[in-house]
Amino acid sequence: MRTLYGYFRSSAAFRVRIALNLKGLAHEHAYINLRLNANEQKAPDFTAKNPQARIPLLDDDGFLLSQSPAIIEYLDEAYPEKPLLPADIYERAVVRQMCSLIACDIHPLNNLSVLEQLRGQFGADQAGVDAWYRHWITVGFTALEEIVARTEKATGRAGFTYGDSVTAADVYLVPQMWNAKRMEMDISVFPRLSAVYSACLALPEFQAASPEVQADNPDNIVG
Amino acid sequence: MRTLYGYFRSSAAFRVRIALNLKGLAHEHAYINLRLNANEQKAPDFTAKNPQARIPLLDDDGFLLSQSPAIIEYLDEAYPEKPLLPADIYERAVVRQMCSLIACDIHPLNNLSVLEQLRGQFGADQAGVDAWYRHWITVGFTALEEIVARTEKATGRAGFTYGDSVTAADVYLVPQMWNAKRMEMDISVFPRLSAVYSACLALPEFQAASPEVQADNPDNIVG
Repeated sequence: MRTLYGYFRSSAAFRVRIALNLKGLAHEHAYINLRLNANEQKAPDFTAKNPQARIPLLDDDGFLLSQSPAIIEYLDEAYPEKPLLPADIYERAVVRQMCSLIACDIHPLNNLSVLEQLRGQFGADQAGVDAWYRHWITVGFTALEEIVARTEKATGRAGFTYGDSVTAADVYLVPQMWNAKRMEMDISVFPRLSAVYSACLALPEFQAASPEVQADNPDNIVG
Repeated sequence: MRTLYGYFRSSAAFRVRIALNLKGLAHEHAYINLRLNANEQKAPDFTAKNPQARIPLLDDDGFLLSQSPAIIEYLDEAYPEKPLLPADIYERAVVRQMCSLIACDIHPLNNLSVLEQLRGQFGADQAGVDAWYRHWITVGFTALEEIVARTEKATGRAGFTYGDSVTAADVYLVPQMWNAKRMEMDISVFPRLSAVYSACLALPEFQAASPEVQADNPDNIVG
């Protein structure tokens, strides 16, 4: 029995949904409503599972694991078929570099709890929060676009974030790009990343992981 | 020839210094002055090496790699002696969970560029920036203290962040704890993490990695 505790709009949960789909690992969803008026991640029955009160949390047959980078590495080690990381040590390193650029230097600054802190501590209004959000995506994606360009040149392979097939780097890129689109950013200024995004969205594993089709998305709740 | 591009006070560079020392890998240091009046990370000869204009950057015999989580995983794969991750898949996963909690949910919010953005965009003063800095350490360490307590109970082993010997989790904890001390936080409210910090600081590999003893620390520059 495998259950992913997530929230439709969480980038980190989105990553894990993609990873589970790419690896073909059957799973159920438990949705944790992060909105301020629900705050289900702080309920005792959830913090008993994850003291950090955050999603995603994977329950893999009783083994509880939080933190999407740890979950993705775990899935790739525990279920080595359909690997998310290349076999070559140097290629793995570059893929992980791309993942970390997004996971450490973009996404944490866009986290809901961080945006709330900006409002609460510095009185940021919606325009200020949005500008902050876009700033970190712009800075990070500008660097990543250049890294992808150089990697393409060095390897002679293109089409995905790293090389010509899906890797963990795409697992991180797509949710962050989805966020950029949601913030109405012009992603065409990142031509390589935009092309990768389109290539990934053509794949059913990414489509099924998208926030739009999650059962806890209010647009999908009838009644 | 192995060179670490770093800056004495950077937590991420501090991590890589610890990892190199723990693995006993000889290396030279190239110091990149991140201060606003220097901004050496943005100089063309450095961005030619790392388009993200960030340190740490490892040059391992010509292989250039940025992002401390990627560097640490690479070192552990390329030089498997003295492993930083346990052999067991579940234990590895928990160690990586602890690393990510620090690398994704605490440290990015304390990053110099983020603090500058708070000042520039929201007019944050020093007291506001300091409060923000401490807030994210408090939230993250409170969760980590509980995770360490539960892990101790589950494994029956204690003394370090995970278990009774040094792992990658300590490589991440020590620089973040050093930051907390620098911000004059009372770390005794995290008794397990404080004990681990003391245990690590007794080890020469951690001592030699400390910001205090780096050659680019202004306190160590004579003349």
